[in-house]
Amino acid sequence: MEFSGGRTFLFRVPEGEDLLEFVNRFAEAKEIKTGVVSAIGSLKDPKIGYFDEDINDYRIIELEGTFEMVSLVGNVSLRNEKPFAHIHVALGDGEGRLYGGHLFEGKVFVAEVFIQELKGSPLERKERENGLSLWEEEPLE
Amino acid sequence: MEFSGGRTFLFRVPEGEDLLEFVNRFAEAKEIKTGVVSAIGSLKDPKIGYFDEDINDYRIIELEGTFEMVSLVGNVSLRNEKPFAHIHVALGDGEGRLYGGHLFEGKVFVAEVFIQELKGSPLERKERENGLSLWEEEPLE
Amino acid sequence: MEFSGGRTFLFRVPEGEDLLEFVNRFAEAKEIKTGVVSAIGSLKDPKIGYFDEDINDYRIIELEGTFEMVSLVGNVSLRNEKPFAHIHVALGDGEGRLYGGHLFEGKVFVAEVFIQELKGSPLERKERENGLSLWEEEPLE
Repeated sequence: MEFSGGRTFLFRVPEGEDLLEFVNRFAEAKEIKTGVVSAIGSLKDPKIGYFDEDINDYRIIELEGTFEMVSLVGNVSLRNEKPFAHIHVALGDGEGRLYGGHLFEGKVFVAEVFIQELKGSPLERKERENGLSLWEEEPLE
Repeated sequence: MEFSGGRTFLFRVPEGEDLLEFVNRFAEAKEIKTGVVSAIGSLKDPKIGYFDEDINDYRIIELEGTFEMVSLVGNVSLRNEKPFAHIHVALGDGEGRLYGGHLFEGKVFVAEVFIQELKGSPLERKERENGLSLWEEEPLE
Repeated sequence: MEFSGGRTFLFRVPEGEDLLEFVNRFAEAKEIKTGVVSAIGSLKDPKIGYFDEDINDYRIIELEGTFEMVSLVGNVSLRNEKPFAHIHVALGDGEGRLYGGHLFEGKVFVAEVFIQELKGSPLERKERENGLSLWEEEPLE
């Protein structure tokens, strides 16, 4: 789907907020229907997911302690008519080893977030047979 | 090199496609000569590369199974006069451990891809002495 | 903070440069006060940091050898009235294992860098009680 560039936001999330929940609230408050998100920072006690096709659901991996948020990459689109952020993170421990997956939870120690709004026909997530909530596939003609 | 912003695309790659091959076909179909790419999703049986300077070539690392695509970062430029995507990925296993490198292959389970086209004089990749296909270096005056 | 899109840059850093130092010089030369940065490439002997709250300072992790720069995500803002790049990297070794954290040093083997300038009221880093140099928090009303 082609879009044109909308507003851009760069901001620091207040310490102690849940990162994913804050990004969702931010998108809703600013009425961002479609966009892309990236960020760096540091997260406490993050919970990440690995999608397990055998059970058609996420396996939750709970990490303890504070992790450098080495990358956050994701997007915002509509789900049940509300802005919904789909976000993956890479997290570094004190030895520099990385862990990562689908972000479920994580308390902000530091989060510097960039959101690029995209203007156009919104993308909508719908439940698919495999248990995931996804946009329509976009084949190449 | 300075560019101005061109078109933007956000889309889901059909399940089962080879991700790198699809991004290259997409860029060619849309005539994207220069751009940046980011994505998240999940990939099956990815093959990633580590460039080994001793042999001036990539060492291929074959991963088996399905991995969360925790980050995909890359760009599109010209190589042999055709759009060419240079892409690096971080991939998470079921324990949340990350692997990554230069993307060679990987079958899409889910891929939500963002491409920002850049307009201006195209960057061209050429074979360099070290075995890599690279743009001209851009020194600061 | 809301911004409007400014100039965009996509370029290859000359081999042998220190990556962070080059990005800072680039931002200063181009007078980029605010922006976001992403990159891929390959780095030699990188030094990355993990912020240790017990000592209110970074613990430095020194990696030896050449690593695929699987992701670089960060931003540019003002610190002491000069452009300052805050950058996190994920780095892959010859087995595809990833390490990462806050980028302190690293010699460029290859670095393909994208910078999106943002126009608006500049964000300024100031020393905070926890030892970090951060922007003001931006609460949601």
